[in-house]
Amino acid sequence: MAAASQARRLRPDLEIIALERGHWTSYSACGIPYFVGGEVANLEQLVARTPETFRERHNIDVRLRHEAVEIELDAQRVLARDLEAGKDIEFGFDQLMIGTGARPAFPRVPGIDQPWIKGVQTLDDADELVQFARTISCKNVVVVGGGYIGLEMGEAFVNRGAHVVVVDGGPHVMRSFDADMAGLITTAMEKFGIDVRSGVRVTSFDEGRVITSAGEFPADLVVLGTGVVPNSALASSVGIKTGVRGAIKVDKQQRTSADGVYSAGDCAESLHLVSGQMVHIALGTIANKQARVAGINIAGGEARFPGVLGTAVSKICSTEVARTGLTEREAIECGFDADATTIKSSTRAGYYPGAAPITVKMITDRSDHRILGAQIIGQEGAAKRIDIVATAITAGFTVEQLIDTDLSYAPPFSPVWAPVATAARVALSELS
Amino acid sequence: MAAASQARRLRPDLEIIALERGHWTSYSACGIPYFVGGEVANLEQLVARTPETFRERHNIDVRLRHEAVEIELDAQRVLARDLEAGKDIEFGFDQLMIGTGARPAFPRVPGIDQPWIKGVQTLDDADELVQFARTISCKNVVVVGGGYIGLEMGEAFVNRGAHVVVVDGGPHVMRSFDADMAGLITTAMEKFGIDVRSGVRVTSFDEGRVITSAGEFPADLVVLGTGVVPNSALASSVGIKTGVRGAIKVDKQQRTSADGVYSAGDCAESLHLVSGQMVHIALGTIANKQARVAGINIAGGEARFPGVLGTAVSKICSTEVARTGLTEREAIECGFDADATTIKSSTRAGYYPGAAPITVKMITDRSDHRILGAQIIGQEGAAKRIDIVATAITAGFTVEQLIDTDLSYAPPFSPVWAPVATAARVALSELS
Repeated sequence: MAAASQARRLRPDLEIIALERGHWTSYSACGIPYFVGGEVANLEQLVARTPETFRERHNIDVRLRHEAVEIELDAQRVLARDLEAGKDIEFGFDQLMIGTGARPAFPRVPGIDQPWIKGVQTLDDADELVQFARTISCKNVVVVGGGYIGLEMGEAFVNRGAHVVVVDGGPHVMRSFDADMAGLITTAMEKFGIDVRSGVRVTSFDEGRVITSAGEFPADLVVLGTGVVPNSALASSVGIKTGVRGAIKVDKQQRTSADGVYSAGDCAESLHLVSGQMVHIALGTIANKQARVAGINIAGGEARFPGVLGTAVSKICSTEVARTGLTEREAIECGFDADATTIKSSTRAGYYPGAAPITVKMITDRSDHRILGAQIIGQEGAAKRIDIVATAITAGFTVEQLIDTDLSYAPPFSPVWAPVATAARVALSELS
Repeated sequence: MAAASQARRLRPDLEIIALERGHWTSYSACGIPYFVGGEVANLEQLVARTPETFRERHNIDVRLRHEAVEIELDAQRVLARDLEAGKDIEFGFDQLMIGTGARPAFPRVPGIDQPWIKGVQTLDDADELVQFARTISCKNVVVVGGGYIGLEMGEAFVNRGAHVVVVDGGPHVMRSFDADMAGLITTAMEKFGIDVRSGVRVTSFDEGRVITSAGEFPADLVVLGTGVVPNSALASSVGIKTGVRGAIKVDKQQRTSADGVYSAGDCAESLHLVSGQMVHIALGTIANKQARVAGINIAGGEARFPGVLGTAVSKICSTEVARTGLTEREAIECGFDADATTIKSSTRAGYYPGAAPITVKMITDRSDHRILGAQIIGQEGAAKRIDIVATAITAGFTVEQLIDTDLSYAPPFSPVWAPVATAARVALSELS
């Protein structure tokens, strides 16, 4: 819908049809944990623009409950199934935008299809989950998967009064952070009352129990936060090239390998600006930016999407966490001569009420002092500082350049040396 | 003291003597309004490092109440007056760092020397002010000057229960903002109960009254927040060159026109990174950065200070305000073909509890789409986003580059398009 809106803005004359399999358009999947946790009262609040708005104000022909099932590239046609009427309809196109997103990567273990085991990817999922949670006692909840959504859902169910266990198969939760920083997140979760079990694999689901490599956990409800994989089968079925993790290959204009066919969002690849490698990072920010570029190009304009850093932020059990660029582990894997520096500072001037701890880890390149990545964990006001580092990395800044950057300071907002600049200073003294 | 500490870090062998006229070292002048307002209980909390710390842990020979009164460049000597003992002492130097700071620019009007009219530049000033405020009823307070300190002091005295009038001679308060954005600040202050009078000049102070071009205001206490001028007389008396507003001229290594003599902080000039002009901006952030560079060079290292953007942030009457780079007015004065865009967005996802308005004004160059400056005004969580723009301007970013920057998003922190990116998008559509 972001691509459609962008194209419409530039070209009032285009005929734009949007096919959507579900019941909703343009909603905030990232808001689902807050609906489940009760901070957001109604599911409808998560909808940024309704189908009616798209139809009436943007002249975009949105077809809900229409699933694209076949593409004919030569004939320039898409076959869609009207899921309500149960019939197929053909749509011709001059240009096609594939924004099929991602689907949950559920573990293939016995018992996973039971009704008390729920995914949380779509608004329909969220609706179903909350309805179900209301009908049961919801005393014991097991969350499978320790990424952003998994941890946010864990917190949401603590807020609903449940005892929550988070089970994660990796060596630590939040694999987009290094182990040391993820440890701080685990500590925050444990203080909040969540039982965090890393390195534990689910082997099966049995009546009211999750069977794992580390024993059984009782569960009235299981939430699956096990990540997503690109929904690229439709595209690849007609020979459109896919790359990393099966994501659709796109160039900087978001063009796929097929003429006149674009792709953007969770189904598509991105270029990582630091590693130079193609990556698949399913984030709404990236999806929106790619879709804007696709929409401009579809409308005959010229735009290029340079790439991503995987910048992300979350609030987990009152602790703010954020990351951008490469972790230390990733930097080493990518062959950088990486140095890592971790500093502790304060969210405000030390004497100002509400000053709270902030930990910044900065990854740098020993050879040229360039910043490769950063992770921030702290209390209120800590995390959004990651954007300074994201902007600096995008610009190719060295630690010296970040130290000299004229960042804002006042006692309610920061120490006089910004925590990210302090990290850069300590990194520099290690590098020199 | 920042230069001294930096030099010490690199050169344990240097003999370092620091002469300080007052009673304190290394304190947060920016914290004074919060001491006056009562958020900070003790003056001592504003001291980052005591003279004892400098002496004992950093081996820096700090001489308090020693005022440098004469420099002999050829003989490499400084004459200092021991203000307690009333005698003069000579100190030889190989390298000299002048960090004499700035002094208040008090209006030269009749009656200004009365004891109920107070400056607020040093900790001694703050101590005196609060002692005085405790001895009187403090019903009516007039603040002269509508810059950061003036407005913060106005709020502090409202918090102490006073009726506060802020009198400012300029066309609007906060002259480092454009008039339209400053208007939002004025509104916030008025809602808080402060009587804001712009375009009003004080003509004299008379027993319990401030006489102005717009009539009289009763006052038990007057706080002077009328800005500062560089304290460069000592330097210029020996022929060290001064520039804009009398500030000491320095090169990128913070060297003055005299061999072996450095300067940094509120007494020195800075290069503005956007206008390319030398400027005098008295901010603790800039002082610390320049002092770091001076300290490295004094220690025989190599560092250069690229310049400043005048990035600043403040919380005024619960409203967060921030700015960086050039205002629209400054950009036009500097000869840029400047475009200005103002957008309204939200500090969080619209549906997330606590989402509050944020207004972003972005100044851009029509010819090459470069970002020249920005101003942000909003509620909690709004202002620190200025650092994204400050970093982007430092990197020479166009609005297109800012739009594509991978900034962090989660519902408690931001809408999916960061407000500064939204400003860049709207700016781009105006520029195209």
